[in-house]
Amino acid sequence: MRKINAEIIAVGTELLLGQIANTNARWLSEQLALIGVNTYYHAVVGDNLDRLVNVFKTAEKRSNVIIVMGGLGPTTDDLTREGFQMLTNLPIVEEPEAMGKIKQFYDRQKMEMTENNRRQARIFQGAKVITNPLGMAPGMIISRNNHVWVFLPGVPREMKRMVKDTVVPYLRALNGDQTVIESRVLRLIGIGESTLEVKLSDLIENQTNPTIALLAQNDGNIIRLTAKAESTELANKLLDDYEQKIESLVGDYIYGYGQDTIDKKVLQLFKQNKLTISAAESLTGGLFIERLISHPGASNVTPGGIVSYGTDAKINLLNIKSRLIEQYGTVSNECALQMAKNVTTLLKTDIGISFTGIAGPDPVEGKPVGTVYISIFHKSGKHHIEKVILSGDRYSIRHRASLKGFELLLKILKNQFST
Amino acid sequence: MRKINAEIIAVGTELLLGQIANTNARWLSEQLALIGVNTYYHAVVGDNLDRLVNVFKTAEKRSNVIIVMGGLGPTTDDLTREGFQMLTNLPIVEEPEAMGKIKQFYDRQKMEMTENNRRQARIFQGAKVITNPLGMAPGMIISRNNHVWVFLPGVPREMKRMVKDTVVPYLRALNGDQTVIESRVLRLIGIGESTLEVKLSDLIENQTNPTIALLAQNDGNIIRLTAKAESTELANKLLDDYEQKIESLVGDYIYGYGQDTIDKKVLQLFKQNKLTISAAESLTGGLFIERLISHPGASNVTPGGIVSYGTDAKINLLNIKSRLIEQYGTVSNECALQMAKNVTTLLKTDIGISFTGIAGPDPVEGKPVGTVYISIFHKSGKHHIEKVILSGDRYSIRHRASLKGFELLLKILKNQFST
Repeated sequence: MRKINAEIIAVGTELLLGQIANTNARWLSEQLALIGVNTYYHAVVGDNLDRLVNVFKTAEKRSNVIIVMGGLGPTTDDLTREGFQMLTNLPIVEEPEAMGKIKQFYDRQKMEMTENNRRQARIFQGAKVITNPLGMAPGMIISRNNHVWVFLPGVPREMKRMVKDTVVPYLRALNGDQTVIESRVLRLIGIGESTLEVKLSDLIENQTNPTIALLAQNDGNIIRLTAKAESTELANKLLDDYEQKIESLVGDYIYGYGQDTIDKKVLQLFKQNKLTISAAESLTGGLFIERLISHPGASNVTPGGIVSYGTDAKINLLNIKSRLIEQYGTVSNECALQMAKNVTTLLKTDIGISFTGIAGPDPVEGKPVGTVYISIFHKSGKHHIEKVILSGDRYSIRHRASLKGFELLLKILKNQFST
Repeated sequence: MRKINAEIIAVGTELLLGQIANTNARWLSEQLALIGVNTYYHAVVGDNLDRLVNVFKTAEKRSNVIIVMGGLGPTTDDLTREGFQMLTNLPIVEEPEAMGKIKQFYDRQKMEMTENNRRQARIFQGAKVITNPLGMAPGMIISRNNHVWVFLPGVPREMKRMVKDTVVPYLRALNGDQTVIESRVLRLIGIGESTLEVKLSDLIENQTNPTIALLAQNDGNIIRLTAKAESTELANKLLDDYEQKIESLVGDYIYGYGQDTIDKKVLQLFKQNKLTISAAESLTGGLFIERLISHPGASNVTPGGIVSYGTDAKINLLNIKSRLIEQYGTVSNECALQMAKNVTTLLKTDIGISFTGIAGPDPVEGKPVGTVYISIFHKSGKHHIEKVILSGDRYSIRHRASLKGFELLLKILKNQFST
């Protein structure tokens, strides 16, 4: 086959009604891009036979690999098979393995199988079957007139699994691609996307293998490296070398890899260092501690915290002196430090962190919206206070404040308190 | 024009690389569906002139209203105008108002305008201009050979504003539609989607105006009613009547309208009833109180809470007796009630709510993952304890537990404590 130019067709009236976005096409395009397959068109069509055939005909004219998602289910509005049959006159047969799976499912549920469920086991004669480990309808690959047609269910998790297991290896072989592709994700925090781009500009411009892609996320930035080589080992060697170059430029901001999140990483570091932490939160209202506790095993690291949103709660629960509040206000260096110190003592942890500030919409104590103080206290008495001015609405300010707390802890765990 | 059949074309290589999903098409399809315009096709094409023209030709053959989003910007890979010109040979002219806006922008920024910025002011001769109040590139509507072409920028907020202000009214007029469309969203909690469907089945099947659509969401269910009438007043009358029917069937589960969320609603009810609340959270780890505090004005309703995730925190901060824990365990009726009672006292609120349970992955105290106790205590001594068994992973169990807390408070605020 000449160079692949792929088209992705999604079948389903719910897409045309705007009930869901075509996230399947986004995901699949990304997978194809990673293996060097060009996607030139996406199409979406409803559960209508004439229009489905129309879309298939259009695709056949302009693309040589056509991936169709959806319309393989048991109901009468699942028309993908019928549409392709109208185009090709290919006979349809029942696939015994898929049929067995469907029967088994109904036996297990002690339900009677209705006739329309047989539909899901029907495939085109001569098609290569794509096993569906997570569902009933198998997929198909059909080569015909210099075109490859791939049919997949529209259920995202079934589709994704089948693409990874079968479609990606198949297309790579079709592309004559003997190489191995390995990719790696580095996660950074504390550096803006544009600064990162400038610092890495030489690497980005002059490097083709591995390739580098930057992506801004809510929780910092991502660098994705993708290397091509004769073997996994060689691809990883390329990635290692390149990663070292990146580390020499922006290593201070890298906190993790792959699916790491900053809260997960901080939790891990606390575990490794056998340290415990508690939190005293005002404007963040529990956001910080909630993110820590979201991970299994958090109980070894934190007993919990105090959400002292109101001034009374700061006085009653955290034992902040009213005099301190009168003198400095609740949004101050002094209050933040005292909150961190007192929560450390009250919860008998090694470290305490506090958040106090103004999430808006209105200014407080004459200070502008976005003013936030974060303090980190170690039971030895060492401490750190950081004042930040955050932008955005109430939601952003609160989330950025909690994120900043994790960022500071990361820095400190790497340096001061970890011994 | 005969009945509209619309096609939505999104232009941008980033869509084909899988960097973003085509959420513009989803949103626009939804808007079209609401005004009774059928969308039969979506297409996505990259920043490539040949393929762009190919997609335009295909669309012209099968659709009579073609809405193109993206590719109107200042850079050389913005090719939508060039593509349409290749198809039609229509002359392009500079639109004075748009040009003035661009110049003004650069003057204000004290920056020099580069030549490519002029591109954004270029429109097809005779086109109806769609004003872009939020950006520089105007949109266009062009009627040609019984087809209507609509061109819009790809920036979501600009596109959405222009669709609402100009495209929707234009298409409704084109559809010969003199009627007004009004829609209303009802929000429900505490009832499953399938039960809801059964209870409303008569209404759903026999009603065409208003139409009814059910949608399951993370935080409960949504009913969307859409009515068509000669006037806003009549449409609202239809909605009122229908809403009454729905209320008579499932009124107990309706908590709000439109953009209401259950936490916002609960906060409102507390405010209205001049009641205050505090929370003692174990497995939810701050999720409950965080959702309350996420709303402006929360300070009138809650001073905060205690995240007593570890047993020590329950004893030290919440003053739970170790004897109680030894006898009943932390995941028990007794512990839940005591937590709710003590947080009410400690934070001097009218009501206290507590959450204790097992989020997993491992069972605790011989009780299975998903076991959750929620207690609500009123300072008068009245109280409620609810045991629920929640399914799902750690994330789901924690979020469902906090949601259940809001659901219980809603019920109680409607009945017992509100007087």
